[in-house]
Amino acid sequence: MNFRPPYRHLRRLVNQFKKLPGIGEKGAWRMSVYIATASPKLARELAKALISVTERMRICSLCYNLAEGDLCWICADDSRDRSKICVVQSVIDILHVEQIGVYKGLYHVLGGVISPWEGVTPEHLNISALMKRIEKGVEEVILGLSSTAEGEATSQYLYKILKEKVKVTKLAKGLPIGIEVEFLDDISLSEAFKRREEM
Amino acid sequence: MNFRPPYRHLRRLVNQFKKLPGIGEKGAWRMSVYIATASPKLARELAKALISVTERMRICSLCYNLAEGDLCWICADDSRDRSKICVVQSVIDILHVEQIGVYKGLYHVLGGVISPWEGVTPEHLNISALMKRIEKGVEEVILGLSSTAEGEATSQYLYKILKEKVKVTKLAKGLPIGIEVEFLDDISLSEAFKRREEM
Repeated sequence: MNFRPPYRHLRRLVNQFKKLPGIGEKGAWRMSVYIATASPKLARELAKALISVTERMRICSLCYNLAEGDLCWICADDSRDRSKICVVQSVIDILHVEQIGVYKGLYHVLGGVISPWEGVTPEHLNISALMKRIEKGVEEVILGLSSTAEGEATSQYLYKILKEKVKVTKLAKGLPIGIEVEFLDDISLSEAFKRREEM
Repeated sequence: MNFRPPYRHLRRLVNQFKKLPGIGEKGAWRMSVYIATASPKLARELAKALISVTERMRICSLCYNLAEGDLCWICADDSRDRSKICVVQSVIDILHVEQIGVYKGLYHVLGGVISPWEGVTPEHLNISALMKRIEKGVEEVILGLSSTAEGEATSQYLYKILKEKVKVTKLAKGLPIGIEVEFLDDISLSEAFKRREEM
C-alpha cells in the first residue's frame, strides 16, 4: 500500500518480511499486525527458529542442497540410485520433485541459470563441481531446469559440455495435466503438437 | 505438502511461519528455504525486528488499535474528527480504511465478532469500552464490520445497545467496483437489486 502508517517498529518488521519470496506489501502488513497483536510467544519462537536455521543449516558438500550435517539427507541415503543426477536450479526444486516421489537418484543444485542480463555466467553456477561428480560412475544426468529462455539456454550449455561424458536427458515437455487447451500458452501448445504421441 | 523432508531446524521454522495469516505449507517452505540459503544477516535482522515489535508495540488505551505509546497515532492526532467512531473487527481493517483516505474520524477495534460457534460472546469483545467512549461527545458510530452472517449479527447487536444513545450507521452494501455481475454471489446481487438507486 502507498499509505505508510507511522509505526516505526512495525514498519521495520514489514520491511523485513517483504524481503521474503512471495510476500508483498499487503501480506507483510498482515503478518506484522498479526504478530504485534498476538502473544509475544509467537514472535519469540519465530525469532528463535530463524536464528537456529542460520546457525545449524549448511550446504551439502556434494550436491549443494540444504544439509544439517556435511551431506544432505539425500546424498547420505545409501538406498538412492547414485548413477543418476538430476540438475535443478534451486533447493526448493528438490523438495518439489521429492514430494511427487517419482525419482530415486541424486541431485545437483546449480544455484540459478545462466543469465547474461543479470550478469550470471557459468562461473557463477555450481558447474565445475557437477563435472567432477560425473567422473565417478554417474550414468545419466537429467536436466530439470525451467522451460524459460534462460533455463533452456542453460540446459543447452550443460548438454554441450556433458554429452561426451555421460548420457544427458531433460524433462519432457507438453500439456500440463489438468489444463484446458484453451488456456495453454502458444509455445506450450506448439511444443505439444510437435511432440505428439501415438495413442 | 504431505511429504516431510527430514530437516529438523528447517521444519521448526516452517511450522512457525505456518502460524502466520495467509501462509500455507508451500509458502512456509519457500520462505524457510530462502532464509536458509540466504545470508545469515537476513534471518538475524528479521529476528531482531520481531523482538522489537513484541517489546515496543502496545494496544491503544482508547481504541485498541496498535500503538507505540499510550495512544495510537490516530487517537493522538488532534486533527481527527472526534465526533465519529468507526467500529472495526481488527487493527488491519483500520489500515485498509486509512489507506483509502475517505474517513477522518476515530476508530474502535472490537477484537472480533460475536460467534456462538467459536464461543465468542459480547463479553469477549471491547464493547464496554466503546459504550464508555460514546458518552463523551460522540455523535455517530459507523459499524464497519464484515458482511458475513456473524458480522451482520454483531452489527445488529451493537445497533440495539447503541441506538438510544447515538446515531448509528453502517457501510453501504452493493456491487463491489470492477466486478462482473456474472461472477457476483447470489446474496450480493440480490442486495444490490433491493438497494438499487435512481440514476
